[in-house]
Amino acid sequence: MTAAQNKIKVGVLGFGGLGQAAAKVLAPKQEMILVAAADHKGYAYDRLGLDADICGKIYQEKDSLGYLEPHGMLSNNSIQDLLEKADVDGYFLALPNLPNTFMASVAQQFIDAGWRGVLVDALKRTSAMEQVLEMREALQKAGITYMTGCGATPGLLTAVAAIAAQSYAEIHDITITFGVGIANWEAYRATIREDIAHLPGFDVEKARAMSDAEVESFLDKTEGIITLEKMEHADDIMLELAGICSRDRVTVGGVVDTRNAKKPLSTNVKVTGRTFEGKTSTHRFTLGDETSMAANVCGPAFGYLKAGVSLYRRGLYGLFTAAEIMPQFVK
Amino acid sequence: MTAAQNKIKVGVLGFGGLGQAAAKVLAPKQEMILVAAADHKGYAYDRLGLDADICGKIYQEKDSLGYLEPHGMLSNNSIQDLLEKADVDGYFLALPNLPNTFMASVAQQFIDAGWRGVLVDALKRTSAMEQVLEMREALQKAGITYMTGCGATPGLLTAVAAIAAQSYAEIHDITITFGVGIANWEAYRATIREDIAHLPGFDVEKARAMSDAEVESFLDKTEGIITLEKMEHADDIMLELAGICSRDRVTVGGVVDTRNAKKPLSTNVKVTGRTFEGKTSTHRFTLGDETSMAANVCGPAFGYLKAGVSLYRRGLYGLFTAAEIMPQFVK
Repeated sequence: MTAAQNKIKVGVLGFGGLGQAAAKVLAPKQEMILVAAADHKGYAYDRLGLDADICGKIYQEKDSLGYLEPHGMLSNNSIQDLLEKADVDGYFLALPNLPNTFMASVAQQFIDAGWRGVLVDALKRTSAMEQVLEMREALQKAGITYMTGCGATPGLLTAVAAIAAQSYAEIHDITITFGVGIANWEAYRATIREDIAHLPGFDVEKARAMSDAEVESFLDKTEGIITLEKMEHADDIMLELAGICSRDRVTVGGVVDTRNAKKPLSTNVKVTGRTFEGKTSTHRFTLGDETSMAANVCGPAFGYLKAGVSLYRRGLYGLFTAAEIMPQFVK
Repeated sequence: MTAAQNKIKVGVLGFGGLGQAAAKVLAPKQEMILVAAADHKGYAYDRLGLDADICGKIYQEKDSLGYLEPHGMLSNNSIQDLLEKADVDGYFLALPNLPNTFMASVAQQFIDAGWRGVLVDALKRTSAMEQVLEMREALQKAGITYMTGCGATPGLLTAVAAIAAQSYAEIHDITITFGVGIANWEAYRATIREDIAHLPGFDVEKARAMSDAEVESFLDKTEGIITLEKMEHADDIMLELAGICSRDRVTVGGVVDTRNAKKPLSTNVKVTGRTFEGKTSTHRFTLGDETSMAANVCGPAFGYLKAGVSLYRRGLYGLFTAAEIMPQFVK
C-alpha cells in the first residue's frame, strides 16, 4: 500500500509547453499525483506516478512520451488507448484546440468510451466553448463532471470578475487585459498559433497551417509582439451564463511579447458597475508580473480539478464553468 | 398568483445601517423579495413584500419596525416570533455581534425552532466564527444551510484571495487593508462600536457599554479616525479551512474615517506566494473607492444567499464559508 493511493490520480492530455508545466506543477503536490500523460504520438502511464522531469526530457528529445521506458507506448490513437487503460480520477486537457472543434471531439471520445470522472479544460475561444456547452446533457448522462474555461483567462480572472461583480446592482463593463512574456516562442508553439489566429486576416485554420518558419518570419515583422484586441474569448459567455452581464459587456485583449520573459504589461481585470446607491465604480484585480502564464493557467486548472472531484464524488455530473465553482487549493 | 411567488423570499435580521442598506439593495431585484425584517423591539412581515423606504423611515422615526402598519408587531422576542410566523427562504443576519456570542445564539434559536432554510452572516471576528463553526453538525442535522463570513471582509475579499492563491504553489502572506469612510457615524453605531472593540485597551464588552456621548468623545480625540492593525478577523480561519495557508499568514487591518464619506485609502487584498518555478510574486485586488461598505457587504451577502439556496435545494446542509462557495449574482 502506498501513499499514492490516497491521492487524486491525474492525467494530462497534451505535452507541449502547457502539459509539461502542468506536470511540474503537480510534482510537489501531496494531494495529487500525475499517473498518465498523452501526446499526439503516444502516451505514458504509471499508477505509481510519472516523473515530470524525465517525461519533459523524453518529449523534448524524441517528440513523444511513447518512448518513455518502461511505461511509454507509441500509438496513433493515444488518447483513446490511454483512457481505456489508465485508472485516472481526472484529466487536464492541455491540448491546443486546433482545429476549433478538437476539444469537443476529445470530450466525445471520453463519453463514447464510457469513461467516468472529471475533465478540465483551459479553452479560450467562445465558439469552442459553445460546442462543449452543447454537450452538457450528454456529459451528465455519461457521469462525467466537466469543468470548462479553467485556466487564467478564461479561468482565474473570470472567477475573480464573478466575485467582484457582487458589489454592484448592475455591471456595465468587464475588461480583461493580459500581458504575456515568453523568452522563447518555440516552447509554446501551439499557444502562439492560437494567438495569431485571433489577429485580423487570420483564422484558426490559417494559423494552424503556418510552418515554424512562417511564424518566425511573421514575428520578425512585429518585433516579436502580438497585440490582440476584442478577442473572441469565452470569458464573455461564462459571465453571461453566470447571470452577471450580457456577453457584449465583456472585452478581452492583450499584448504578447514572444521575445522577452518580462510581461509587456500587468495582466488585469476591471469590473465596472453601478452600486445600489447609484455610484459608478471599478474594482480591479492585477496579477503579479513574476507569475508566468504557466503558473496562472495550471494552478487554477488543478484547483478546479480538485473542486470537480468533490462535485463528482457527490454525484454532481455535467458541465460547470470557472465562474460558477470555487476552485480548491491543492497542497 | 403573483410574481412574488417565484422569487427567493428573504428576511433581514437587524435593521440598523446594514439592515436598512440590505433592504435597499433588495428593492430593485427580480429574483429576491424582502418579506420579513426584525429589530430588537419588533418585526415586520408581509408575504407580498416590504417597502425598503417605508421600513427605513419607520425605524428611524420610531426605533422599531414593530410600528409599521399593518404588518408590524412589537415584541421582546422579535426574532423568535418572526421565524415562527414568516415563510422565508433565507435570512441575512445583519445583526451587530455584541456580545461576541450573539450570532451563534441566534443560529441556535433557528435550530431550536425547527426552522429550515438558508442563513447568511457577515461576521467579522475569528472567535465569533469559531462558535458558529462548532455548530456545523447541528446545522446539518437541522436542515439549515448556513453561509458564514459573507460580507466584504470576511467575504468578497476572502473569496478573491482564495482564487488568487491558485497561481501559487505556496502562500506566504495574505494582507487585507481596508479603508472605510462614513459621513455620519451615528448611522453605523453598532459597526463603529465593533471597530472600537478591536483597538488596544478595548474589548467587545467595553465597546458595547460605551454611550453615544462616550463614542463621540473618543472620536473627537482621534479626529474621527480609527486605525486598526492586526485585527482579529475571520478571514484567517476561513482561508485556513479552505486549505490555502495557516491562519498566521493572514493579516487584516484598516483605517476608518468616521467624518468623511471619502475612503482614507483604497480597500485591497494582496496575495503573495511562490510559484512552481520558484518565483515570488503578489496578486492584488482593489475595490473602487466609490463603492460603499454597504454595497460591498450587502451585495456579496445576497450573492451567497442565492448560492446557499442552490445548495439547500440540492439537499446540501451544514456550514459553508465565503472562501469555499462561489456567490451567485442576484438580478
